[in-house]
Order: sequence, then C-alpha cells, then structure tokens
Amino acid sequence: MTAPDASRAPDAGALDVELITVGDELLLGFTVDTNAAHLARTLAGVGGRIVRRASVGDDRAVIADAVREALQRTGAVITTGGLGPTADDLTRDAVADVFGRTLALDAALLADLEARWQRRFNHPLPPSNHRQVMVPEGAEVLPNRHGSAPGLWLEDPQGRWVAMLPGVPREMRGMLADTLLPRLQGRLAATARVVRSRTLRTVGIAESALADRLGAQARTVEGLALAYLPGAEGVDLRVTAPLLPPDEADARLGAAVETLCARVGPYVYGEEDADLAALAVQGCRVRGWTVAVAESCTGGMLGMRLTAVPGASDVVLGGVIAYANAIKVSELGVAPALLETDGAVSEAVARAMAAGVRARCGATVGIGITGIAGPGGGTPDKPVGTVWVAVDVDGQVHAARAVFPGDRHEIRYRAAQAALDRLRRAVDGQAPEPPWVTRS
Amino acid sequence: MTAPDASRAPDAGALDVELITVGDELLLGFTVDTNAAHLARTLAGVGGRIVRRASVGDDRAVIADAVREALQRTGAVITTGGLGPTADDLTRDAVADVFGRTLALDAALLADLEARWQRRFNHPLPPSNHRQVMVPEGAEVLPNRHGSAPGLWLEDPQGRWVAMLPGVPREMRGMLADTLLPRLQGRLAATARVVRSRTLRTVGIAESALADRLGAQARTVEGLALAYLPGAEGVDLRVTAPLLPPDEADARLGAAVETLCARVGPYVYGEEDADLAALAVQGCRVRGWTVAVAESCTGGMLGMRLTAVPGASDVVLGGVIAYANAIKVSELGVAPALLETDGAVSEAVARAMAAGVRARCGATVGIGITGIAGPGGGTPDKPVGTVWVAVDVDGQVHAARAVFPGDRHEIRYRAAQAALDRLRRAVDGQAPEPPWVTRS
Repeated sequence: MTAPDASRAPDAGALDVELITVGDELLLGFTVDTNAAHLARTLAGVGGRIVRRASVGDDRAVIADAVREALQRTGAVITTGGLGPTADDLTRDAVADVFGRTLALDAALLADLEARWQRRFNHPLPPSNHRQVMVPEGAEVLPNRHGSAPGLWLEDPQGRWVAMLPGVPREMRGMLADTLLPRLQGRLAATARVVRSRTLRTVGIAESALADRLGAQARTVEGLALAYLPGAEGVDLRVTAPLLPPDEADARLGAAVETLCARVGPYVYGEEDADLAALAVQGCRVRGWTVAVAESCTGGMLGMRLTAVPGASDVVLGGVIAYANAIKVSELGVAPALLETDGAVSEAVARAMAAGVRARCGATVGIGITGIAGPGGGTPDKPVGTVWVAVDVDGQVHAARAVFPGDRHEIRYRAAQAALDRLRRAVDGQAPEPPWVTRS
Repeated sequence: MTAPDASRAPDAGALDVELITVGDELLLGFTVDTNAAHLARTLAGVGGRIVRRASVGDDRAVIADAVREALQRTGAVITTGGLGPTADDLTRDAVADVFGRTLALDAALLADLEARWQRRFNHPLPPSNHRQVMVPEGAEVLPNRHGSAPGLWLEDPQGRWVAMLPGVPREMRGMLADTLLPRLQGRLAATARVVRSRTLRTVGIAESALADRLGAQARTVEGLALAYLPGAEGVDLRVTAPLLPPDEADARLGAAVETLCARVGPYVYGEEDADLAALAVQGCRVRGWTVAVAESCTGGMLGMRLTAVPGASDVVLGGVIAYANAIKVSELGVAPALLETDGAVSEAVARAMAAGVRARCGATVGIGITGIAGPGGGTPDKPVGTVWVAVDVDGQVHAARAVFPGDRHEIRYRAAQAALDRLRRAVDGQAPEPPWVTRS
C-alpha cells in the first residue's frame, strides 16, 4: 500500500481511506446513512481509518469528481451504492471514467444472474438488468452473497484503488466481511494501529451515580477514553483505545474493562449487545425456575421481552395484562380494598399482583409491575414515571419503587428493564442497592 | 442570494447547499449521522437542495479545507457539530480561518451562559467553557433554544455564507426550525421549486399484490415517482413531487394520493407516521367497545402496542399471555382436547382463546393470537411464520391464517400488526380480502 500522505506521519502504518456514499436518496434525506458508521467502525478495528466522507447524488460527473478528488488526496476509496440495475445506478460508469476504462459485459456474471432470476422469479432476466454485470476493464469482481449486484475493485498502476460496494446495508456488510476486509488486511502494514472499543452495559444506576463511582466526571479509565451513553435500557460505558497496535489495544481494553467492572459492580450485566431478557431467562433456566408476569402500565412489554428470547418457553409460562383495575381483582386476586386504600400504583398492589400471577400460573417467580406511564395521571405524591415492581420468588418478595424520566414509551421501557434487572438479581441472589428506593 | 452555479440551469431558483458534518465520532462510526437526512428533507421541502455532503473529523485545517472547497463550489454551506466547549470543538475557529476573521468573546452570550450554569448546575461557569461564546468578527449569533452552544452565521461580501449548527440532533433541529429556515426562506427565489413527498401506509397486502393493483411494476402515479417501502408494519407507498413550485407540488401530490387510495382501497390506513394501534383504539372508543387480548406467540406485544396509545385505558382492559399450553387451558378455558387434536397453532385454538379472554375480562372484543415465531418449532404443515389470529366481537368471530416472512422478531411484529388490522377492520365493518387466507 502506498503511504497516502507523508504529512500524516503520526499515523503512519494506518490505512487511510475516503468513503463516498452514492444516492439521491441520501441527499434528499429519505435514507439515513448507516453504512458509513458501520464501515468506519469496522475499518478502525483493523487499523484502517476513514479520513473523510462524502455523499453525492446519482450523477455520473459528480460521482466521478468526488472519486477523483479522493484518489488524489488519499489514494484509497470505498464507495457504497449505485451498483444496481437501473439507469440511475452510475457508480461503475463514473469510476470507469476516472480510471479511463471501458465497460464490458461479464459473461460469467450474466449466467449467474440469469440463473438467479429463473430460480427466484421464474422469469427470464429482463435485458435492462444487464447493467448490473457490466464490469470495467481490469476490475476485479467482489462477490455478493446477499444480493444480485456484484461489487468491484479497481486499482491503478500506482496502487491507488477504489472498492465499490452495494448500498443495501445487508449486502454491503456481507461483502465487507467476506471479501474487502481480508483484502485490506493484506495491505495493512505490520505496524498498523487500530482503534478498538468495548462497551459495558449497566442497568439500575444513573449516569451521575456511575460518575461518582468512577471518580467525579471521570472521562478516562486506565488512560483510555471513557464515554457515558445513557438510554432507556440503562447507561452504556464505552472505553476506546486510540491508535494502538492490536495486541496492546486489546490488553489495555481488557485492563480498563476489569477496572470498570470492579468499580461498577453488579450494575454491569454484559457487553456490547447483551440483552437483559436473554440473561434473565438463561439464569432462570439454570435454576429451574418458571416465570409469570402481571403487568399494568407496561401492558405486555415485559412478557414481550421475555418471550423475544428464542426458546423462552421452558421458562416463561405467560401471565396477565391487568391494565384495568377490574382485571387486577378478577384475574390476579388483588383485594378491592387494597386498590381503594393504597391505590393501583402502590407497593401493596405490586406485591399482590406478583403473588397472584405466581399462584394462578403455578410459576416459581411472579413479577408485578404497576405505574404511571403518563402523559396524564400523575399527582404530586405519585408523579408520572412512578413505578412499583415486585418480584416474588417462592413467596419471598422484593419490591421497589422508582420514578423514571422520559416520555410514555421510555417510562414503560425503563419499567420493563427494571423488572428484568430485578429478576436477574434474584437469580444471582443479589439485592439491588440504591439508587433504587427499596421498601421491602 | 447569488445563483451559485449557472450550469445548474434546470434547477435555477432552487437554493443549492453543501452540508458538512463535523466530528471524530462520525468518522469513527460511533455515531450514525441522522442530522444529514433531517436537514436534507427539511431543505428540500422549501426549495433547498443538499447537492453534496461531507463528514470531517475534529481537525481545524481539515474542517477549513472542506468549508473552503464547498464555498468555492456552491457558496452556501451548513455545518453541524464542533461548537461545544471542549478543545476538540473547532468549527468556529476553522470557519473564521476561511473568512479571515478573528474570534472575540461575546459578553452577552457569556452572561447568558454564566446564568445558565448557575441555574442548572448551581456552579460558576468553568473558564474552559468560554470557548462556546467566542464569536468570529462579523458573525451573527443563532440562538439555541435547547442547549448552551449558540449557532453562528458568517457571510462574505459576495453573499457566500456558512451557517454553523450544533451537532446534538435536538439542538440542531430546534435551531433549524426557529432561525435558519426563516432566514433561508427569505433568500429563496419566488420561482423556487420544492421536493415534497407524501407517504401512505398499507397493511395486510404484499408488495407484489400492491404492484398488481397499481399496474405491474408501477413506479409512477399521476406522473410522480412512486417508491414501495416494505417493512414489518406493512408496505409504505411514498410518492414524491420533484422540483415543482410549492402549490403545484401539493396539488399533484394530492391527486396522486387520491389515485393511490382509490386503487389500494382499505389496505391504506393512514399517512406518514400513522400508528395502527392508535387508529384501532380510537375506532373502538367511538363504538364504545372494550378489548381484551389472548397472546401466545406474541407474548404481550399486542397488549403493549394497544397500551402504548395514551389514554388507552377506556378501551383496553388487559388480557392473558398464554405462552404455555397449560395457561391456555387454565386461564382461557381452551379445551385440552382441542390442543390435542388441532394443535396449539390452529384456527380452533385461536377462536377459543379469543372467546375465552373476552368472557374472562368481560370485554366487547376478544383477540386471540397463536403461531410459530421460530427459529425452531416449524413443521411442513405449519412452517415457522404460521400465525392464526381470531377476533371475536360479541360472539361474531373472524379468524384468519397467515404465514409471515422474517426472523422471530419480525414474525411476532407482523402478527401483532395483523391483529391490529383485523381490529381496525372489525371497527369499520369490513372483512379483509385476500391475500389473507380466511377460513371463517
């Protein structure tokens, strides 16, 4: 790989790449460009670096200009989009223009595409689709496992290259993983430095409380950058190792994660895309527990999350959506007097719901949720966001109250997440700590 | 407004703009750039046009280069990001470099910011935050209703301008609507042409069946471009009027929507962000109906969607999540013999679930859903994706089977959406047509 720009000395060894995403849909704002972020993270993880991004419309000359400028600047370009069969798919033509190459129909690709059409649509390939298998002279074809438009690789004698990937995210991701990444890794210098990150997922603790545990306003851990990413599922902690050799990056990330886990303790439930429901279901399975839910304000969301886990049926029996108070009484056995004295959103009712659904369904664990999701229904004593969750394991009940921020959807989501967290804690035999207001 | 490029004659009158989004987060792929799509759609709707987009990192010289090139090309630039208080927020410095202006502390902005800190954090403003209120000589300040970093507008004697907006989407959107759009509308020629679109939402009909109704492979309607956007909620139909005077765009979109509605009929349930659950709940409210749900494969998702509608409590009573067969028997009164002979995923069981939950909850309408969400559990007779939905209105039952494509989540989502569609149809007194396989 030609070093693209000696002035970037501090990052010598890294593979600098420009990214050009093509499509009128992008410029008109009909499509949010998720390809760019995926490509950037993936490349950064192996020592590549997107140094510049551009989006251009379906205009042959404009695409060619953008590619030409990027080749002159950086010498390494990835494009996405504009490889399909229609007249406005112009990336291959534009890049061929830049390299001064002509396009020719690739017979092997055509045969594949014809077979594909016969198989999938039981219809001969319309001649208009031939565009898809036109290949610039000297280009290499990058196979597409998930779609019909092949990718292309063009390189000039000076080693400057353009990799053309499809715009459909699934096709782009497949081609990147299957073909382009292995090819680029061969071009990375042994001294290549990577940007890698790990993300820990926490639940049941606020960003400010996390910051207190990590040292006020801590923005680094073990010398690596730390980002707080709050959302309805909890606060994710992302630690990033910047431009290090791969082994050193991994070692330092490992040390940072260890430190974070030690300081944050049981609020951490996993890494990256970990799903609290899957963890809770798996924990129950190991213990041989069955689960039943009684939901008021969440209206089925806890059940939905538990049953979203493939194979949940050996753990999750079902439950009752007790949105109306009459259902709490008739289907869960909540005493009307309790609803009268304590109100539907109360510790006593949450406990009665949990106990009721456990008994009705014959489950090991009953979970009751009752709260005020808003926008209406709040009072000074019980503002919008007030939620009681009770978890009854074989008659041992743990109940807690929280006041969640956000809109109706977010409050419901946080309530279901909190219930899953309590279930996970029950499986682990841990009582949650504050900031939960626990009154058991 | 200076016409930016006479060669763009066919679009004369439109306001061509380049967009530069700033931030290492964007180049590293930690952030998906949603600002670009929002800006593009919003501008297109008033006669602006993003002709080119770029993303650059937090590097003063690189930002300045990108802005300089865009100013030379198009003369009109919007940036997002890089206006915050930290040392890597460099947009204002870079743009000042391009215009050859110096930065000076704005005393009024500083006083505002100090008051804000005192109010929000009960803490004096750290001097490091002064960066946020440095303003390039000759720049106009664009107020930020949602955050502390003001936006900036810089213009040279030739009328070339840069508008600097914050990167936080909520702040950017607020500033765009409050300040920048009114300012740009003043610059639009009276002949400005807009790109506007309307989106119709359909449910219960496949993309291919829609295309048949609209004329095979129809990609236009009333001369406007038509896009099919299939998803788990159904197929959206987006019709786009390209570069027309605003009144003509709206009139032609109106005609196209009328034609689409006439041809697609009751599969259309709304426009833009219409929510089928909200429609179904509102329909039931008008009829004075109450609703109870009995969910197997969806595990609470239908209840969740119905109760996501604010104020659903006068319609939705609740229901039973009958994931295990034992719960179908004990809580819904499904006969064990039925489960034995017909299997849990069958018309008879769906009907029994609907009738059972209606009776138990004392509702006008009972809805039963039973199916195979996968990935396991499919058979040749009942493949993964097979779902029975039964809607029982006062003892009148309509049941139908579908085989949904997609993964576990998508199958469940489509099943809940189909149940909502049947509820909406019941409210309207319409029986759905094929492609539903109806056996009632």
